[in-house]
This record gives sequence, structure tokens and C-alpha cells, in this order.
Amino acid sequence: MTKRRSETKVLTPARSAQLRAMDSPSKASHESWAMELVQRGLLEGQDGYQLWLRHAPLTDEVRRQAYRQAFGQVNVVGHSATLLAAERELSRALPSMLAQPVSITRGISVQEESGLLIASVQGLPALKDLVGELSDLGTEGFALVRVQRRGRALFVVAAQTDLGVLYGAYELLRRLAQGVPVEQLTGRFIPKVKLRMLNHWDNLDGTIERGYAGFSLWNWYALPDIVDPRYLDYARACASVGINGVTLTNVNANALILSHDYLLKVKALADVLRPYGVRVYLTARFSAPMVLDGLETADPEDERVQRWWSDKCTAIYRLIPDFGGFVVKANSEGQPGPQDYGRSHAQGANLLARALRPHGGTVMWRAFVYSAEVPTDRASQAYAEFVPLDGQFEPNCLVQVKNGPIDFQPREPQHPLFGAMPHTPMMMEFQLTQEYLGNSTHLCYLAPLFAEVLNSPGHGGTVAQVVQGAVRPTSVTGMTAVSNVGSDPNWCGHHFAAANWYAYGRLAWDPESDPRDLALEWIKQTWGTHEGLVDVLLSIMLQSREAVVNYMTPLGLHHIMAYNHHQGPAPWIDQGRPDWTCTYYHRADAAGLGFDRTKRGSGNIEQYPPSYQRLVEDSTTCPLDLLLWFHHVAWSAPLSTGNTLWQELCLRYQAGVDAVGDFIERWASVEQHVDELRYSAVRGALLRQRADAVRWKDACLSYFHGFCRLPYPSQVTPPEHALDWYKQQEQYFVPGIPERRFGH
Amino acid sequence: MTKRRSETKVLTPARSAQLRAMDSPSKASHESWAMELVQRGLLEGQDGYQLWLRHAPLTDEVRRQAYRQAFGQVNVVGHSATLLAAERELSRALPSMLAQPVSITRGISVQEESGLLIASVQGLPALKDLVGELSDLGTEGFALVRVQRRGRALFVVAAQTDLGVLYGAYELLRRLAQGVPVEQLTGRFIPKVKLRMLNHWDNLDGTIERGYAGFSLWNWYALPDIVDPRYLDYARACASVGINGVTLTNVNANALILSHDYLLKVKALADVLRPYGVRVYLTARFSAPMVLDGLETADPEDERVQRWWSDKCTAIYRLIPDFGGFVVKANSEGQPGPQDYGRSHAQGANLLARALRPHGGTVMWRAFVYSAEVPTDRASQAYAEFVPLDGQFEPNCLVQVKNGPIDFQPREPQHPLFGAMPHTPMMMEFQLTQEYLGNSTHLCYLAPLFAEVLNSPGHGGTVAQVVQGAVRPTSVTGMTAVSNVGSDPNWCGHHFAAANWYAYGRLAWDPESDPRDLALEWIKQTWGTHEGLVDVLLSIMLQSREAVVNYMTPLGLHHIMAYNHHQGPAPWIDQGRPDWTCTYYHRADAAGLGFDRTKRGSGNIEQYPPSYQRLVEDSTTCPLDLLLWFHHVAWSAPLSTGNTLWQELCLRYQAGVDAVGDFIERWASVEQHVDELRYSAVRGALLRQRADAVRWKDACLSYFHGFCRLPYPSQVTPPEHALDWYKQQEQYFVPGIPERRFGH
Repeated sequence: MTKRRSETKVLTPARSAQLRAMDSPSKASHESWAMELVQRGLLEGQDGYQLWLRHAPLTDEVRRQAYRQAFGQVNVVGHSATLLAAERELSRALPSMLAQPVSITRGISVQEESGLLIASVQGLPALKDLVGELSDLGTEGFALVRVQRRGRALFVVAAQTDLGVLYGAYELLRRLAQGVPVEQLTGRFIPKVKLRMLNHWDNLDGTIERGYAGFSLWNWYALPDIVDPRYLDYARACASVGINGVTLTNVNANALILSHDYLLKVKALADVLRPYGVRVYLTARFSAPMVLDGLETADPEDERVQRWWSDKCTAIYRLIPDFGGFVVKANSEGQPGPQDYGRSHAQGANLLARALRPHGGTVMWRAFVYSAEVPTDRASQAYAEFVPLDGQFEPNCLVQVKNGPIDFQPREPQHPLFGAMPHTPMMMEFQLTQEYLGNSTHLCYLAPLFAEVLNSPGHGGTVAQVVQGAVRPTSVTGMTAVSNVGSDPNWCGHHFAAANWYAYGRLAWDPESDPRDLALEWIKQTWGTHEGLVDVLLSIMLQSREAVVNYMTPLGLHHIMAYNHHQGPAPWIDQGRPDWTCTYYHRADAAGLGFDRTKRGSGNIEQYPPSYQRLVEDSTTCPLDLLLWFHHVAWSAPLSTGNTLWQELCLRYQAGVDAVGDFIERWASVEQHVDELRYSAVRGALLRQRADAVRWKDACLSYFHGFCRLPYPSQVTPPEHALDWYKQQEQYFVPGIPERRFGH
Repeated sequence: MTKRRSETKVLTPARSAQLRAMDSPSKASHESWAMELVQRGLLEGQDGYQLWLRHAPLTDEVRRQAYRQAFGQVNVVGHSATLLAAERELSRALPSMLAQPVSITRGISVQEESGLLIASVQGLPALKDLVGELSDLGTEGFALVRVQRRGRALFVVAAQTDLGVLYGAYELLRRLAQGVPVEQLTGRFIPKVKLRMLNHWDNLDGTIERGYAGFSLWNWYALPDIVDPRYLDYARACASVGINGVTLTNVNANALILSHDYLLKVKALADVLRPYGVRVYLTARFSAPMVLDGLETADPEDERVQRWWSDKCTAIYRLIPDFGGFVVKANSEGQPGPQDYGRSHAQGANLLARALRPHGGTVMWRAFVYSAEVPTDRASQAYAEFVPLDGQFEPNCLVQVKNGPIDFQPREPQHPLFGAMPHTPMMMEFQLTQEYLGNSTHLCYLAPLFAEVLNSPGHGGTVAQVVQGAVRPTSVTGMTAVSNVGSDPNWCGHHFAAANWYAYGRLAWDPESDPRDLALEWIKQTWGTHEGLVDVLLSIMLQSREAVVNYMTPLGLHHIMAYNHHQGPAPWIDQGRPDWTCTYYHRADAAGLGFDRTKRGSGNIEQYPPSYQRLVEDSTTCPLDLLLWFHHVAWSAPLSTGNTLWQELCLRYQAGVDAVGDFIERWASVEQHVDELRYSAVRGALLRQRADAVRWKDACLSYFHGFCRLPYPSQVTPPEHALDWYKQQEQYFVPGIPERRFGH
């Protein structure tokens, strides 16, 4: 019997047939009925909690037989908590996938064994005699090796370290779920990025800034006494895709997390995550010495401040010996920082870096800074602020740069900082939580966005090369993403949002991975391997991000969303801090639309590598997808598609809406292959997504139409209401922002 | 395979043996291994989501055989959604409990059947020919009947209505889980209270006032498009214990819930709950006509206001034909109300009652009113305010009265209002969420508290008799409780807190139920039937509430908790609104301790029935448990126990702490009978409870010692710290209250 079973709410014909089939167990044998119960359990009542770690029985009988032969016996050599984790993962997954019992033995002499052996050089120094040299694998890499001995085949998950073995176990299970033939399972795997992080924007009161999947996983009140078993499953999910560090707290930071009482809670979490190779980081509020201990200043050049941070780090490492370090948002959007004392970001970062350095910790200093008082293009500010500081950061500092120069928009060009600070380690910051992409009600597979940025030119090489340290070796490399995980039973709210967590982890391991391959991996592990099902899900996922771009911000439009909660269109916003308005970004007028960032305009393009400058500076060669990002274009200007700007804009909005309509139809076509709970949840979300998409299209077109006053193309459904109607649509209590009081 | 599986964190010896036993499946047969998987699934990885509806395989082989014979075939006659719900509940539960397939047939002629028949007069008019007269069962009652026909036994769940059948199905399953012999399963069951409610104090932003089990179940943002399957499981849990109405929103109300957009969301929820007989209610903010539609007044005697509410109710019932009505907190703790316009509570309640009446709706008007400007005893205010209004309320109004005259303290005497308004229906309000009893980290079985109040004397009969309308028939009867449910995987935070949800529902059905019986029912369905396990859990549960009273507020002390979050001791609070301080309630001085509510004091006892007055007015006959509630007693006064007040106070605090220590030991003794996830979660919570208990004891004794300056009895561990230390213990971000900003 499954744990979460809910009843059918709406019985569609396909569903009825499916249930009838399941409701008539053969009465021949209670035993076969029991087996059926197990299999029913895997289809019925999926709440998504298991993520991609469902380990469903493999349906390909031939492959399953081969795997049974190869992996029916598991031999584990070693005793660390990490190796135990690998063992337990295999002992939970293999019996289910192979649909047979699997025997696990420990510490037996290698030479006599066939089956599967998992071991590291840590636990079995003789391992390299068996599988060859392993030192190239480093501290996290692993090898999957087949060895023939006395006519028997031994399959080995081998690594220098037990963490490598754990990663190898997950890789093996991933490959089994894909149905890879036994002889093709082998390989050597080494991560290309050293720090593969998640940033949680979780507040200490349990809310999550820009969180759309419930509330924070971390139950600070209950910790350290009560340790939610979910923390362990979180660690498993992270480790299974290679994530090796998590920042527990919001970048808009609360100093309280650094108090002794809270550090005890952090320690309890760190103890759970440690066996899975996941190190804990915290956000450091720059004013913490003042807030927590009454210092008069937080000036990084003040000796008392330096001593405070040094003592604080000593205290932290006493509790958490593998503490990762600090992520800092300083002097941005109201956060305190070194500039409050006339010091530079480098001076601020180095204050913390020097306190962490004796313990092996790292500072991740965010480049997401912009001042409302600087009247230039916001897109140019981070580059202008940080490039002069190149070379001034301590070696255990990384500058953490968002993928684009504004703020996680549906589409932005790559951030111009990548490669522009050759003497400074620079890490990528993506956003998994869909702050600007429809939160957890819109299906949007983000790996194409990530890959687009990673494959874009930075200074000296692609962004991926810069991030990997392949352009110029750096002391450390890193990638992070703002987590989309919350307390929702399925972790990420939308059942497809977990694909972004998955794909991000895999991309951080290898930034040159193909989003299509990652989608396939995720689908087969999460939804099953039925060919028709896989094809449909893949097609929806690969088109989903472009659909969102089209119905929200086509052609390079950006930052035209609602002021506070970011869910829904509001291109008319023109009041308040100028660079928080929408008119600042779209610059619509009677003549045309778009932000001129060429040399004639803000000059922002000059921050990019010359070849990229040349590509985008001419509106006739600039990719249409970024046209209005870099250019102010006349409404009637002809584009390469043969349409005028206005026509193209209308058609893209319509295409976005139509795509969601297609998703709904395609989803309906696979109903019989999907368990009911997930089917109806995704269907409900898609219906909401379509309604939202229509509102985006209609509100934006209605607004822009007021400037251009040109007719709508015949293929486009004109807005249903007048502009004022869209302006009046208020949304209250949108998740992810502090409560907005109403009517008190 | 279970849905939620987490790994062993700490392997104790008992746990290791248990796991080893499970890790060695017989290899004889894959089929028996599959059966084992099913059973493992029921022990491993219990996250508590299934509550008391686990339907674990029955372990008593003899009984199981008898049940198999009796219930191996189920015949369902009728087609309503409610009957379908009953069928699905049986078809999910019986195969698991009986460990065999169960055949379900529909609409077959009764006369030819044996096995189990479920039907109502609604679906099978001939039913009473089979089982006799049913009209006495009313709209919710049911009968479990055995009929012998042609030598074959037919067991019938019969009722007038399909809802009665659903309740009957749950009762049957409950009795099977208890192992009741087949021939003793029969009976007739009719609820003694008509409206059996839960009040959710859930805010529209997802937070829950005084909520300690995560955040709100209701995802207002996703509704109405996305309907969380959990709503259905919530309905199942409610229906299984007879709860038939839920108020979705906080009594500190937001008018927005009455807007059209939100009513569409409410409708989506109502549609899910309806088949389970659960009607939806909302809280009505008295100023809603002003907030939502700009009226200048909310005066209940204003015609426009009356029309507004009338129109609003018409609109609600168009969407939700079985809408239950409104719960209102007015002119209390800042809420708007009729007194803002010089009108009485009756005038306010009647405004809404008249708007609801044509549609069959009910108003539940809370008597929890007290004004800081009235200088008398707060415990006397509700009585003083409401008794003069007796007879002035419309018949579809209930006055909703908290169990005690202050506010859900660990122990209070019954509220003096019960029975004091003979011409007004009066309903009971309990609190399941442990606002003052250690929130979801303290194990506290509340049914003994509820029963204590229900069995106390009201005017004209016991409180239970008043609530049931047995003292004087009323147009309607009702009971409600503030829900302790949230988004936590196990619904209520603490694994034992679900017992309070369960027992409350059963007590609302029959207010004279025995808390011990209810605990046994809940234990066997939730944890299993192993005798030693049941005994230990029962003993812990039955002692738990007294333990909390002892370490928090023994001898009738009350309201000595922290000012804002209520978690932890703070008897020293003497600033702010006087009736929100603690000194107002305990009145400690050099002479003694306690609130004199006799005729010499506040005179509050005069609101009680004469016999009760006589009992409590003399400090030598007043029950010790309420001594300091009614009397100011000298520190050295001898009590009936032979101890002085000071000694008795110290000993009771110590007894509370010691009891939790005993719970920890007893819990450890049943480790091998409990799945690991729940075992370790409860153990963690018990450790925290003990730490909290010690802090309560030490802070309170340390504070009171400052007045009496007498030595601690030798059996008592004196406080570890000086009073100032306890005063300085700040707790931030305690769940259940709005965020308290720190350090910004």
C-alpha cells in the first residue's frame, strides 16, 4: 500500500478503464496479488515526493535480466557514513528496479566476488590493482569499470574517495533507469566545476523570498532537537545530481543565524547533510557584529570588526568542521555593506575571506549590485563596479554573477562580467525558483536557458569555459542556483519544476551537458520509459521556456512585470524608483520600442567581447530574440522574418499562448500513462498557465497598442478588454513575498 | 514500495536487529518477497500522513479469518458521490486489513447476497424491509446490522442517507482495527451534536495564527485551477471521525475572502469536501461592506449594510449551495463589530443570521470578548456581556463559547456561560492547536481536558448536557475546535497531536465518550495493536496533559506565559495592557499567590451554579487543581496534601518535569515496535519537551521564590540560574505568530 493515496476526483474515460483494469486482480494467488499491489503502488498516488529517485521496476525484460545477472549481488568494502549511504541507496533501488531481492555483502575479499563491487581507495587501498589508476579522478570523480576475472564479470564503482563512490552509485542507477546496455555502462566521470551550490532564500520565520513551493524546509524552531527526516531525503536528491554545497539562508540576510543558538541548529542540519557530501554555507549580514554584539561599526578595516569575524568563524568551525563559508549580498537593495564605510566590495569580501581562510572556507560575494542614484543603464552597473576590483580579492573569494545583467528575466543576454575579471574566480548564479517565469504554476524547463547562457561568448571563451576555469585557471570554480525547493509534498510545487533542480545539478557537474539529454534522463526516472510518453514530455519540456518568453517578454523585452510580486504583466508601471519601473526598460513611445544599449544609447554593449558587440550592435544582425534588449526599434520597421516589429511582437505573444494550448492537448494524450495524482495536478497547472499567458499577451499588447496604434495581424486574437481592465487586475497574497495586508 | 522512505540516521541496537530481520527476505519466492515488501512498507518510512487511516494488516489470525469470511465481498447499492466515497474507503482498507483481495459489486439484488452490504434508504428504498426501521437515525446516523438469510450471514451498513452510510463504513473499519468480534460489531449510532466543526485560523498569505504544523493547507494562490489532492485526504480524515463543517479562515478575519475571486476558490474547496459531508464556513469580517465595496458604514441597523450582506449571501449560495455560514469574532482584540456603532452583539449576529437564513446558513458568534477598558476580572466579562442578550438572537445563531473563561489555558474551570443563556443555542469551542500547551513540540493528549470541561457543572446540567441541548432543547447544537492541522507531512507536527484531532471529532459526535477509549482506538489504528506498545502509549497519553499542567501552570495558575508567542514562561510580565500581563493573573506578593475570585475578591464565582460556588468558594474545599484560580493563598498555608502552598507548588512543577522524563524512558522501551521515522521524531520532541519543562519549572519557581523566600523542598531540583537569566532568554521566530523582525 502506498503512503499517499488519494481518491479519484474526476473519472475520465481513460482513467476509468485504467482503474477498472487495476481493480480486478487475479484471484488465482494472493502472492501475485501482492506483487500487483507493489506495482499499483508505483502508479497510483504518486505525490512526487520521490522525485527522480523512484527506482520504478524496469519494464524492458531483456535488459532487466542482464542487470539481474550483473547486479544481483552487491559487495561493499568500507565503513564510512558516505559509503553506507551508497550502500543503502543501492539496496533500496536495485530490488525495486530489478524486481528481485539483491544480496548485499560487506567487506568480503574482492578476488572471490562477481556482481557489483563498490569501494574507494580510502576503504580498499588495493582497489587500483583491480581497476587501474584512479588518482586522476580527484576527490569527487569516479569510474564505472567492468573487470573479467576467472571467467566471471565484476562491475566496480571505484573512486579515490567514498564521496566519489556515492556519486558513482547514483550514476549507475541513473544509467540503469535509462536502459543503457551493461557493456556501455562504464566510464570515468569527473566534475568540471568544484563548488556546485544551491542558494536557499529561506527566512528564519519559515517564509521563502520568491519561494513558490510552500515554505522553508528548515524548521528552525524545532531544530536542533527535532530533525525532520526530510532533510536526509533532500541530501539524497542533492547528492544524486552532484550538488555539494547549500546556502541555508536568504541573501537578504538575518544576523540571528550567526548567533550561538542558531549555529547549534545549523550544526544539526550539517550533520545530516555531511555523509552526502553536501556542505553547509550561510549568508552573512555585513552588519552582524553590530546587530549581535553591539559593535559600533562593521567597517571592514576596523580591527575589532576583523576580530569579531575571526572569532565567529572559529566558533562556527568548532561546531561544523566542514562549514563551507559565506554568501554575501552587500550594498544592494538595502543590504548593509562595506560601502557604508567608504570601503570597496573587495575590502568587504576580504574581511570575511581572511576570517574563513584558516578553516578552509570560501566567500561568495554577489555582483548583483546597483544603485538607484547611478543614472546610467542598470545593466552596466555591476561590470562598472567590479571590473576595477579585479585582482584585489583574496583567493578564497568568488565573485558570484547572475546569468544576465538585470535579474533572472525569461531571456537576457549573458552577463558582461564573465571573463572580464581574469584574476578573480567568478561563479555563475542561476535561478531555479521561477521568480519571473510563472512561479510554480507555469511549466518551464529551464535547462535551455542555462545552456544558452553557458554557450554564449564571455571574454576569452564561452561563459561555460570561464566558469570552469578553462580560459584561465583559477583557485576555485563554482556555480550556484537559487533553489526552487519548499515544503510542498513534491518539493518544487509544479511536478515539472523538479526537472530544473535535476538539470541544474547535472549542468553544474558538466556545464556542457545537453539540455535534451538531461530532460530525457529526468523523464525516464520520474515518469517512466513508455516511448510515447517520453516523446510527449520531452517535446513539451523543450518548447516550454520559449513559450514563456513569447507570452511574457518576446524579442528581448524585459522587466515588464508587476511591481512587487512579479507574477503577471504590468508594462505601464512608471512610478517609484526609476530602475524598478517597467517603462525604464521597454521605453515604448510613439516611434517604437526597446532599450538602446548601443554606443548611441547607454553604451552597455561595449562591456561585451568585440565579436559579440559587432553581432548585436547592428539591429539588422542582432538576434531577434534580443532585439529590443539592445535596440529601440520603430514599430513599422521590417524584421528578418518579413514582419514589422509590431506584427512580430503580436505573433510571438500569440505563439506563446498557442504553445500552452498545445501543451494541454499533448498532456491529455498521455493520460493513460500517468498516475492520476500527477496527471490532474499538471493539468490544473497548465490550465492556469494558459489563462496567465492570455493575460500577459492581452495586457502587454493592449498597452503597446496604445503607442503604435497599428492593426492587429489577422492571426492574432485581439485583447478581450481595454487596457484599464488589465491595470485593475490586482493579485493579493501572491506567494514568495511578505504578506501584503489588505483591508485592515 | 512506500512513498516516503528515509534512511536510518542513528542505528541503535534494537533498530539494527529489526532492519537485519527485514533485510533477509526469503529467497524462495519472488512472490512472497513481494508480500514482504508490502508489509515492510507499512512499518518502514511511516511519515504519519495516513493518520489513523493506515489500515494495517490485522495481526490476529483468528479474527482476520472471521473478518475475511464476513467482509470478503462488498455489495454497494447507490450511486452518489458520498456512497462512492464509502465504497472507495472500504475497497482501499479491507484488502489491506484482511490481507486478501476483496470483491466489490454494485447494484445487485440484496436478497441474493452474503458478505457486506452498504446502502441507504436514499439509494435502496427497500432497505428497511431488510434491516428494520431506520427513521430514528436522522440524517447522519447509521446502523450496523447482521441479517441471517437462508443460512447465510449478511452484514449491513444501513442509514437513511448516504452520509450515514459513509460514517458507518468508517465506524466498521474502526471496529475491525480494534479487533471487535464479528457478532459484536453491530449497533445503532446517532451523533449527539448537530454541528461538529473545525475552525482553521488560516490566513490568506498561508500563515496560520497559532499554527505549529507548517503552514496552511489551503493554497489560495493556486486555487481554483489547481486542487491539491491533500484536500481530499483532509476530508476523509474529518469524515472518518464525524466532523461535518470547517471554517477555512482565521477569526481575525480578512474581508478579501468574501470577494468574488476568492469565493471561486472557496467553491473549489467546497466541491472537494462535499461528498464527505463536510460543509464549508467562512469568517466574516464585520467591516467587509466597507472594505470590499466602499460603504461608509457597517452599522447592522443600516439598510444598505443589510442589503449588502443579503446580496453577498445570495452570491455565495449561488456558488456553494450547501455553504455552512459565518463564524464571527467581533469587538474583541481589535476586530470591528457592532459595538463600533453602539449596537449589541445580538444585533450584529442577527444582521448576518437574517442574510443567511433564507439559504439555511448559520452564524456562530464568538463570546470571546473582553475590553481592556473594563477594570473588572477578565474571567467575568463574557458572561456579563452576553447573559443580558439571552433570547435576542435569531434561531440560526449560536453563541460560541471557549471552554474556559480566559483563553485555552492548560487548565481552567468551565466557562460560566454554559447554561446561563437558556434561550440561546450555545456551542463549545475547544482548541486543538496547542497555543498554550507547548505547541507541536509537546506531547499532550487533550481529550482529558475536553472531558473534564464537558463533565463539569453548567447551569441546569453538565456542560456536555448543555452543549447537546439536553438541558433544554435548542434549534441547533454545535461544538468546534481550533484546528491543529497544517502543511506538515504528518498534518499536526507532533505524531501524537493527531490524537487530538481524532478524539475531538469523536467527542463532538458523543460528548460523553471516555478519553481512554478514544486513545485506545487511535493508538490501535495509528501505531498497531501490539499489547505492550498499546499499554505504554496509553499510559503516556493519559498522563500527558497533567504533566503539562504541572510544569507550566499547576494548582490553578494561568496566563503566565511569554507575552507574544506564548511558548515559554514569563510570570514577570507586568507591563502593557493590564489584562495581557501575567502579574494580573497570578497576583504573587509577599503574602501569597493566586487570584481571589470569591465574593471577597472579583466575585467571578457568582457566575457559576450555586453548588459549584459552594465547592470552590472555600479554599479548603476548592479542588487543589483550581486553588489559585479562585483564591489568593498564603505561601505557608497548609493544603489538604499536608504540604504548604509553596511546597506543593514546587513538588508539582517537579512532578511535571519528572513525568516527561518517564515518558522518554517509556518511549525508548517500545522502540522495536515502532517504525524508525516516527520513533526518532517523537524521541526528539520528547527531549525538547523535557528541556522546555525544566525551563518552565525553573523560571517560574525562581520568580515565585523571590516573593516567598522559602526553602525548596528536598525532592525538588532548584533552578540552575538566577531569575535574570530566565528573563533574558529570548525566542525568535516562534511559529504561529507574524514574523518578528530582528536586527534590521
